[in-house]
Amino acid sequence: MENLVYSLPIFGIIGLLYVAWRSAWVAKQDVGSQKMADIAARIAEGAMAFLKAEYRVLAIFVVSVAILLGVSAGDNSSPLVAVSFVLGAFCSALAGFIGMRVATKANVRTTNAARTGLSKALEVAFIGGSVMGMGVVGLGVLGLGTLFIVYGNLFGTDAQNIQKVITVITGFSFGASSIALFARVGGGIYTKAADVGADLVGKVEAGIPEDHPLNPATIADNVGDNVGDVAGMGADLFESYVGSIIGTMVLGAAFMSADFVQADGMNGLSAVLLPLALAAVGIIVSIIGTFFVKVKEGGNPQSALNIGEFGSSAIMIVASYFIITNILPEKWTFVDALYGGVTREMTAMGVFWATIIGLVAGVLVGLITEYYTGMGKTPVKSIVNQSSTGAATNIIAGLGVGMMSTAIPVLLIAFSIVAAFEAGGLYGIAIAAVGMLSNLGIQLAVDAYGPISDNAGGIAEMSELPKEVRGRTDKLDAVGNTTAAIGKGFAIASAALTALALFGAYMTSAGVGSIDISKANVMAGLLIGAMLPFVFSALAMGAVGKAAMDMIQEVRRQFNNIPALKNALEVMRRNEGKEEHEWSAQDQETFRLADGKAEYGKCVEISTNAAIKQMVVPGMLAVVAPVVIAFLPGMGKEALGGLLAGVTVSGVLMAIFQSNAGGAWDNAKKSFEEGVEINGKVYYKKSDPHKAAVVGDTVGDPFKDTSGPSLNILLKLISVVALVLAPFIR
Amino acid sequence: MENLVYSLPIFGIIGLLYVAWRSAWVAKQDVGSQKMADIAARIAEGAMAFLKAEYRVLAIFVVSVAILLGVSAGDNSSPLVAVSFVLGAFCSALAGFIGMRVATKANVRTTNAARTGLSKALEVAFIGGSVMGMGVVGLGVLGLGTLFIVYGNLFGTDAQNIQKVITVITGFSFGASSIALFARVGGGIYTKAADVGADLVGKVEAGIPEDHPLNPATIADNVGDNVGDVAGMGADLFESYVGSIIGTMVLGAAFMSADFVQADGMNGLSAVLLPLALAAVGIIVSIIGTFFVKVKEGGNPQSALNIGEFGSSAIMIVASYFIITNILPEKWTFVDALYGGVTREMTAMGVFWATIIGLVAGVLVGLITEYYTGMGKTPVKSIVNQSSTGAATNIIAGLGVGMMSTAIPVLLIAFSIVAAFEAGGLYGIAIAAVGMLSNLGIQLAVDAYGPISDNAGGIAEMSELPKEVRGRTDKLDAVGNTTAAIGKGFAIASAALTALALFGAYMTSAGVGSIDISKANVMAGLLIGAMLPFVFSALAMGAVGKAAMDMIQEVRRQFNNIPALKNALEVMRRNEGKEEHEWSAQDQETFRLADGKAEYGKCVEISTNAAIKQMVVPGMLAVVAPVVIAFLPGMGKEALGGLLAGVTVSGVLMAIFQSNAGGAWDNAKKSFEEGVEINGKVYYKKSDPHKAAVVGDTVGDPFKDTSGPSLNILLKLISVVALVLAPFIR
Repeated sequence: MENLVYSLPIFGIIGLLYVAWRSAWVAKQDVGSQKMADIAARIAEGAMAFLKAEYRVLAIFVVSVAILLGVSAGDNSSPLVAVSFVLGAFCSALAGFIGMRVATKANVRTTNAARTGLSKALEVAFIGGSVMGMGVVGLGVLGLGTLFIVYGNLFGTDAQNIQKVITVITGFSFGASSIALFARVGGGIYTKAADVGADLVGKVEAGIPEDHPLNPATIADNVGDNVGDVAGMGADLFESYVGSIIGTMVLGAAFMSADFVQADGMNGLSAVLLPLALAAVGIIVSIIGTFFVKVKEGGNPQSALNIGEFGSSAIMIVASYFIITNILPEKWTFVDALYGGVTREMTAMGVFWATIIGLVAGVLVGLITEYYTGMGKTPVKSIVNQSSTGAATNIIAGLGVGMMSTAIPVLLIAFSIVAAFEAGGLYGIAIAAVGMLSNLGIQLAVDAYGPISDNAGGIAEMSELPKEVRGRTDKLDAVGNTTAAIGKGFAIASAALTALALFGAYMTSAGVGSIDISKANVMAGLLIGAMLPFVFSALAMGAVGKAAMDMIQEVRRQFNNIPALKNALEVMRRNEGKEEHEWSAQDQETFRLADGKAEYGKCVEISTNAAIKQMVVPGMLAVVAPVVIAFLPGMGKEALGGLLAGVTVSGVLMAIFQSNAGGAWDNAKKSFEEGVEINGKVYYKKSDPHKAAVVGDTVGDPFKDTSGPSLNILLKLISVVALVLAPFIR
Repeated sequence: MENLVYSLPIFGIIGLLYVAWRSAWVAKQDVGSQKMADIAARIAEGAMAFLKAEYRVLAIFVVSVAILLGVSAGDNSSPLVAVSFVLGAFCSALAGFIGMRVATKANVRTTNAARTGLSKALEVAFIGGSVMGMGVVGLGVLGLGTLFIVYGNLFGTDAQNIQKVITVITGFSFGASSIALFARVGGGIYTKAADVGADLVGKVEAGIPEDHPLNPATIADNVGDNVGDVAGMGADLFESYVGSIIGTMVLGAAFMSADFVQADGMNGLSAVLLPLALAAVGIIVSIIGTFFVKVKEGGNPQSALNIGEFGSSAIMIVASYFIITNILPEKWTFVDALYGGVTREMTAMGVFWATIIGLVAGVLVGLITEYYTGMGKTPVKSIVNQSSTGAATNIIAGLGVGMMSTAIPVLLIAFSIVAAFEAGGLYGIAIAAVGMLSNLGIQLAVDAYGPISDNAGGIAEMSELPKEVRGRTDKLDAVGNTTAAIGKGFAIASAALTALALFGAYMTSAGVGSIDISKANVMAGLLIGAMLPFVFSALAMGAVGKAAMDMIQEVRRQFNNIPALKNALEVMRRNEGKEEHEWSAQDQETFRLADGKAEYGKCVEISTNAAIKQMVVPGMLAVVAPVVIAFLPGMGKEALGGLLAGVTVSGVLMAIFQSNAGGAWDNAKKSFEEGVEINGKVYYKKSDPHKAAVVGDTVGDPFKDTSGPSLNILLKLISVVALVLAPFIR
């Protein structure tokens, strides 16, 4: 077991070596023309401006919480929990930084590659995404593995001390969650605020086309895609990854704990280290998977990505079998103090099945999500049809699709819970979450590929490249939409299972034997917990509106105060309706002079600050609610368990509902781009049904990009806070 | 105690005597002109057509279920449960019949009274509503009281047999729930289908004005208001009323049961009969309250209603004190087998406080609802403001308001649960539900007053009465909107507490000691339960669309196949833009001939059948889900408890969210009728912001009138089905 412990961080390092190698490869690719390079530089600069502003605020937050954690650490813990916290926050932030950096390099290089062919373009976009993926898993395994070695040597890893080691490591997960909150919620607010600001002042008030460099908010808008879909998604899944591993470690430690006296047959740390071992090997499997992703000219990028993803899943199943049967004893028994002292027989094969259940459930939930949001599928078609009678029926149809889409994913998750529990008790549920996330490296690679392709298309458009280039990036982008939908479903499913793993860990750590909802305070906790996602969603949607107002004011200020911009807008107004080459020479000169004069960074910073300011209230909600329930007279440990269950259940439902409604509305609107037939008549863009569909899409935007995905964080963060609080509650 | 038992039905009879007396009084009032009488007759005829069609289908359903219940009755039950079931269904149906009949008489008489003054008009409308209210509570107490006497004499009411008596009575609640499902869900689908059908074919296609007698669906539309807000609301609260009383009786029986050996100090049936006694006296209190409702000419109808409602609540508090301290012993102890044999000390004062908590919580939740949906209040104003930037922002704002509005009601309900449990254990929670509903008679009177005033205004409009008449009915109607909002909030809160009372009763009846959500199957049950309201809402919204299509086809058929209608439409088209008196004599004659030729009854029947057909799937969901969870391998009793908790929690949230979003959108739209200021500019009807607000209102319609209120039934029905199933589950 000693060897295993010390080998774990090596896998993390291998992941990071992959990151370095592939980043260098991406950087080496040609960026294309000067114009392309300029545009890309602005997006990259904006992305860095976002990170800079975000990390400045975060630093204060992280240091404050770390001091609080260090000071209040009790007997079962150690001030070192603050170190774990800082490290978790740092790793999450670093993963975001790496991902954003490579994504903003890969986008323009994908555009350039698309000038020669589809195959090379796919390669660049996917490898860009894989850097993000491996960065997340590499840092996760390296961080957790190293902390385990250090604290293990410090406190000892025998039955008496292992719980303390893991409690202190829990801070790592809390740190990751805090950054995730900022990245996902703040990022979600940011991206929609930029979107609205760019549209409303730029397009509507000033009359400049979409993605035009004159608009200071345009870059923020493009940055927003990276912020939400690269950094936000990455932080979200980094949190799930770390949370599920730690939750499983806590439950694994129970097998060797003195409280569970008859852990016959368990050899020491086996069950504790298993989740880390699975994650570690998952890095190698993910790297292998990346080599499967190849497409021939004229081939289908979707199948290339599928081969990578399903191929690595298949390898992971085989690898899991060998890892689990090698690490765990064939069977062991223990007296489950949580379940009233029931003697439970555990088997390595049971744990293996639980792992597979998680892995398969994640893929299935993703596919269901794709069905409910995919273009040309029945649900989206029904929204398209309802658009012919106006915006109201479009909205009702979309809400209906979103609500209906909760059914199968919830049944799948419910089935997974029961089956994984049958196979391996609470530990089985937790390991199912680990299984779902075991090949996260390649799953995230596929996710991050989406926004890179999306940006690549935008750059092609702005750089006025030939139509076939845009055709190729469109092909990549269309696949990106599918992978994004699948990724969102997967993120929710993994958040649900991670929250349940943390729920089990909380019970173990707090020493609660049951969470009985027939007790009034538990039922009250359940009700309040279930209410939080509703209030959180309302706050997030309101925040988008307020942040957008700040953005609008900044854009107006620049238009009024920067002479070059003012003059250029004047020129545009004067020459309305004419092509640029028909303008007078002086006008063309004035216009050229304005190029790059907009203060993109300032706009990005304003939007970032607004987003961070607006996310304080919803963020506080997530941290304060469990604290209040934990310490309010009449509530306490078990009521907090009720709160966790409530927020998990209602959060999963609201997340699926909002994400899928938003995704379906989006694709219903996109369906009009190629023309759709409703009752025998074909409708295109700018038709009345299309306008109705645009209303639906606008409603869906904050649903799918802000409030919906933020709920993933809410339910995990509340669970982590509860886990951190556990030793303190009477 | 014997005397008490036999006196209970007398209170029910007093309630029904009030019904007879007041119905006769309403019938004696003058209906006004012939035109008014004709219009009113059509609405009344339509309402009866609805009931006829509904009851025909219901009869088959009730008989089938009754046979099933009778055949499958086991040892703990009796085939007589089928009799209770039929009686419960009958009483609910009869209450609906009484309420609809008097409401469709009171509407036109209110209009006529408004010709002379406000005071008299309020009196007619309110007394009409009070007939509905007393009908519901009178039938509830009479039915339950009689069944208790009959079964008590049959089986005996000693500790050994009391549980059986109550189990058999449970069928009454199941019967009431079944009718409520049809009335609320079917009615909700019906009213919106008629609304859409009347609008789309009548107004848009044929070009006839709203509420015109030529439109066969117009009467259905007016009937719809009665169906939804009188019969639907009545059946909903009849279900809550009966369910909360029975739930409390089950828990009260535990105090004398042999399983709870040390029920020291409890004198026999006291705790079992207390809820019925409270309800019985509540009838008298409600009747007294009705005499407080008086308004002087020029006075405020709202304060008149408030005096009646709050006055009767105050009396009820005093009455409760005497009833409880007289019936219950000052204190008693019992060993609570459910809570692991804890010895619990109960006091009469504790039970009294629990009752008051329920009574007060109901009023407060209603007032909060009024705040979130009331015209001129901040939430509605925010939606109005967001209408200036289009339909999308209006929708987002409305969704945000609906979600945010869940917070305080949920905190209130959570607090009530904890406080009532502290005061009186599970019995305390159940008695809180009874307390909330104890003066239901007058609460329903105020609720039913709303649609009567609404109809009165419509009749004034259609009969072309002078403006001041419409002014008076508008004043009544405005108050009606407020009472409707409060009533909706109250209905949800009472559904929540009733479901919890039934939840406790289920646990006792099934003999489950705890519902531990850390068990995987319970968590799965919780997840699936929480998902049901989402799927149910989606189905209900989809059903509205489909039923509306059936209605549209029927209206088109009548326009094409009834010569008189066809000719009249032709005349209208020919004379477009001219007043009727400018038409040729022959045209006027043709037009007059068409009057009354539309087959309103057929239209109503078609719509009714469509509604009933469309509600089969959502209805089945409510009945099948608990059965499947109860008997699926790996699930069972405790998992079913999880399902109940999940559906209750998520159902309450979704009901508040949808009802309040819908109500707020409605009033945001109505704000434009008198003009609203947005950013310094005043907007009226037909302005762009008003059009955006109309979209929101249309989205809100099925939310607030179909899917939202239907969830009340869903959560109570699932709980009742579980309670009925309880003796059968291993």
